[in-house]
Amino acid sequence: MVISNEAHARQFIEAIPHAKELGIWFETIGEGTVEMHMDYDERFIGDPKTKVIHGGAVFALLDTCCGAAVISHPEQRGLTATIDLRVDYMRPATPWQTIRAKATCYNMTRSVAFVRALALDNDDDRPVAAATGAFVAGN
Amino acid sequence: MVISNEAHARQFIEAIPHAKELGIWFETIGEGTVEMHMDYDERFIGDPKTKVIHGGAVFALLDTCCGAAVISHPEQRGLTATIDLRVDYMRPATPWQTIRAKATCYNMTRSVAFVRALALDNDDDRPVAAATGAFVAGN
Amino acid sequence: MVISNEAHARQFIEAIPHAKELGIWFETIGEGTVEMHMDYDERFIGDPKTKVIHGGAVFALLDTCCGAAVISHPEQRGLTATIDLRVDYMRPATPWQTIRAKATCYNMTRSVAFVRALALDNDDDRPVAAATGAFVAGN
Amino acid sequence: MVISNEAHARQFIEAIPHAKELGIWFETIGEGTVEMHMDYDERFIGDPKTKVIHGGAVFALLDTCCGAAVISHPEQRGLTATIDLRVDYMRPATPWQTIRAKATCYNMTRSVAFVRALALDNDDDRPVAAATGAFVAGN
Repeated sequence: MVISNEAHARQFIEAIPHAKELGIWFETIGEGTVEMHMDYDERFIGDPKTKVIHGGAVFALLDTCCGAAVISHPEQRGLTATIDLRVDYMRPATPWQTIRAKATCYNMTRSVAFVRALALDNDDDRPVAAATGAFVAGN
Repeated sequence: MVISNEAHARQFIEAIPHAKELGIWFETIGEGTVEMHMDYDERFIGDPKTKVIHGGAVFALLDTCCGAAVISHPEQRGLTATIDLRVDYMRPATPWQTIRAKATCYNMTRSVAFVRALALDNDDDRPVAAATGAFVAGN
Repeated sequence: MVISNEAHARQFIEAIPHAKELGIWFETIGEGTVEMHMDYDERFIGDPKTKVIHGGAVFALLDTCCGAAVISHPEQRGLTATIDLRVDYMRPATPWQTIRAKATCYNMTRSVAFVRALALDNDDDRPVAAATGAFVAGN
Repeated sequence: MVISNEAHARQFIEAIPHAKELGIWFETIGEGTVEMHMDYDERFIGDPKTKVIHGGAVFALLDTCCGAAVISHPEQRGLTATIDLRVDYMRPATPWQTIRAKATCYNMTRSVAFVRALALDNDDDRPVAAATGAFVAGN
């Protein structure tokens, strides 16, 4: 039986308790490209006045999405782990909107996979956050 | 009545639902230096096999701790927000151990506060993760 | 007389001794988007065996190109400065090839401009390095 | 004949044309800890008005110093390469002052070495820049 990397990525992420806890779910998965969504939840609120969700929830979504992008890459064998991740916060996410993350594994060396991602709410033109990271490559 | 920045930082963080959700609590707070703890919780598990917690939970702790370090800095007026944060993951946190974060706001310009932090489990000599970030300064 | 931001960006960069020293020159400049080139020079060699240029030369090119992208952005008033810059090195640049940098200022808040950039040699499909940075916004 | 990693690091760096070009020289080298200096030079000027040196020159110094710290680490076998490096610029370096960089390789996994560094001018208490990076480990 062949399990494609896509199926692998999907299985893997769906088994992560913390992703479940955050309500993260797959939208699409391609070859090194993944889109995931996370519904707004009052448990994620980082600022009680504005109801804006905490950066940590956005980060968890971006990190999970980047990891899935690596695993779904055709050259990747097996799972991965984050080496480092940088997140730039460009504006507060609008409360009560679903956050969508889109990640691309744009380069893979022998030992390191490079990924970048965006987090968006309903406004496609003004990202909420951008991520750049290095992940463990297995090939 | 004078509310010191320390009290301010403590109040602020304790009011964050996401920090409560993650079980983050203050250990010590100084002038630009903060230590926070987060108990192990199965809800944070990122890898079901190893029971290691998700990087996003460690990130949320580091981000919260860095933000508190900025707010507790003597030159800071008011709250802050993350501009960007980079996290380097050095090893998996040992399951069932409390994660401690120690953050220092080591430089403050007119518009940007620079912070670095470490996340530790019971092994003081081998950090779990390190963070470097830029935050909004208000002075 | 109106001096456009584009002219401003061009003037500014051409007056930088270190950019001259490195042989950096403009290729194109748009509204928040800049392309710059740097010819191969033996003075930049970082590894004497392979003749590959030093990451610091690539960084200087990326940093300069990102700064020019900020200055050329329609919302930017005046000059800028780097707050922080992260560079991911994906592979060694091929010796004796010109390095091209393409930078985009993709988001501008009241105090911070966010920029990303790629460095390429003759192979368009496999970038040499990628940069993500935060710069001082003036608007 | 045994060539220690220290000697290795020193030899290696001294053979780098770009480091020579920048006038970078070793001050001290320990086990995973290196200090390097770079004298002020008008060729590095990034801002003709203020005579402040270009961030790229500071970056090259920090990158070289971080690489040497990895090579000098007792667990490292052979040379290294930068995976990614983030530099935070905290203030302009004072013109005509020597820039000192101090780097520590504070963690080494099977495939990645983590390093951090500071760049200082004559004022020890207010760093000019801070760097955080991941390098290729060989052990």
